[in-house]
Amino acid sequence: MTPVVSIVGQKNSGKTTLIEKVIPELKKRGYRIGTIKHTIHEIKAKDIDRQDKDTYRHQMVGAEIVILSGPNKLMLLNEVKTPLCLDKIRKKYLDEMDLILTEGYKSEDKPKIEVFRQEAAEKEELLSSVEKDNLVAVVSNLKFELNIPFFGLDDYLKVADFLEKRFIKKERSLEIKLTVNQKEIFLKSFISKFLKNSIVGMISSLHSIPENLQEIEVKIKLLKDIPKEK
Amino acid sequence: MTPVVSIVGQKNSGKTTLIEKVIPELKKRGYRIGTIKHTIHEIKAKDIDRQDKDTYRHQMVGAEIVILSGPNKLMLLNEVKTPLCLDKIRKKYLDEMDLILTEGYKSEDKPKIEVFRQEAAEKEELLSSVEKDNLVAVVSNLKFELNIPFFGLDDYLKVADFLEKRFIKKERSLEIKLTVNQKEIFLKSFISKFLKNSIVGMISSLHSIPENLQEIEVKIKLLKDIPKEK
Repeated sequence: MTPVVSIVGQKNSGKTTLIEKVIPELKKRGYRIGTIKHTIHEIKAKDIDRQDKDTYRHQMVGAEIVILSGPNKLMLLNEVKTPLCLDKIRKKYLDEMDLILTEGYKSEDKPKIEVFRQEAAEKEELLSSVEKDNLVAVVSNLKFELNIPFFGLDDYLKVADFLEKRFIKKERSLEIKLTVNQKEIFLKSFISKFLKNSIVGMISSLHSIPENLQEIEVKIKLLKDIPKEK
Repeated sequence: MTPVVSIVGQKNSGKTTLIEKVIPELKKRGYRIGTIKHTIHEIKAKDIDRQDKDTYRHQMVGAEIVILSGPNKLMLLNEVKTPLCLDKIRKKYLDEMDLILTEGYKSEDKPKIEVFRQEAAEKEELLSSVEKDNLVAVVSNLKFELNIPFFGLDDYLKVADFLEKRFIKKERSLEIKLTVNQKEIFLKSFISKFLKNSIVGMISSLHSIPENLQEIEVKIKLLKDIPKEK
């Protein structure tokens, strides 16, 4: 699954600025980056859909997902009843990315980098803690005594190195992912190999399969529940 | 795969109006509907992103996918080098829908319903043909002599019936989908059953699998190409 790292911090601490500096650097290294920003404010159709009135009308009559596809960009609007959690957003929309950076999402359980700029801070105190919030690094112009990596506000190259080494490269060695009833199942190494080799074996002996097998995806929908084997 | 039907027709023929009437009816019947609108105009970040400046900044530095998640809606902006084809959009974003209606996309190979309103037409001629364009129905106030279903401009209930019977219900009986190197592989009935039963058998005997298996998804990434078995 694509790794997610949340950039958190007080208002005006420089979260967006850090994201702005890190993304081009990671892109240069060949990685695909997605971002997620959280808002507590209702998103109104009229605020985000001026360009194309037809999609606005589609939204208003209840299309759950409305897409506008143009030559340079695709816009998607997905009606939700409650805000989607990070894991759902990742699974649904960001599966192909190498890394996801979020701005905010302090209360989710993802690894966090806190940006702290002394001039913008009310107190000389971090918002998040290593134990409770899964804080993995601090970017700041004030030194905090913590047992995690520390970077200066301009050290974005080192932040990029940290993200690459700790999150992107680790994920790349994963080889098989199993999802049952939309929940990912953790597989032990032996089971993972067994399942992978069995399926690759079956698929590769079929007709109409290309010579250079790179990726296999199987999706099974059971029309009635199948009881688990005892 | 979610069925796609394209609503085509001349300018002002009533394509959006038909979509507006059909969607609430299909929703009432319990189906989840997505729509896609095609535009040839460049989509500019500033036109669709006023609400939240941070996401605008994320886009500008090259985040490939930028998401704004709010309490009622999720907005996604996906940078593309060339416009995505319908099949890619469907696979990536609309997999969970029961039906996708597109406005436009006359040149793609999907089944089409043409809307023709005599008052808006320059010529008394349809844009699409049954053979070349996969035209499956006509909605019009002018009768055309064709061997496909014909509906009046206000017959949206019958259009909804047609879409339900011909496209939605047919899809629901599909049980296994195999994708290799991102291309869907057609499976004959026997192979389809064999593969499904083998995988269900392996998975259902694992620990940590819920009792009520409903859906299984396996994704395998091969780190080096595996040659096809001879």
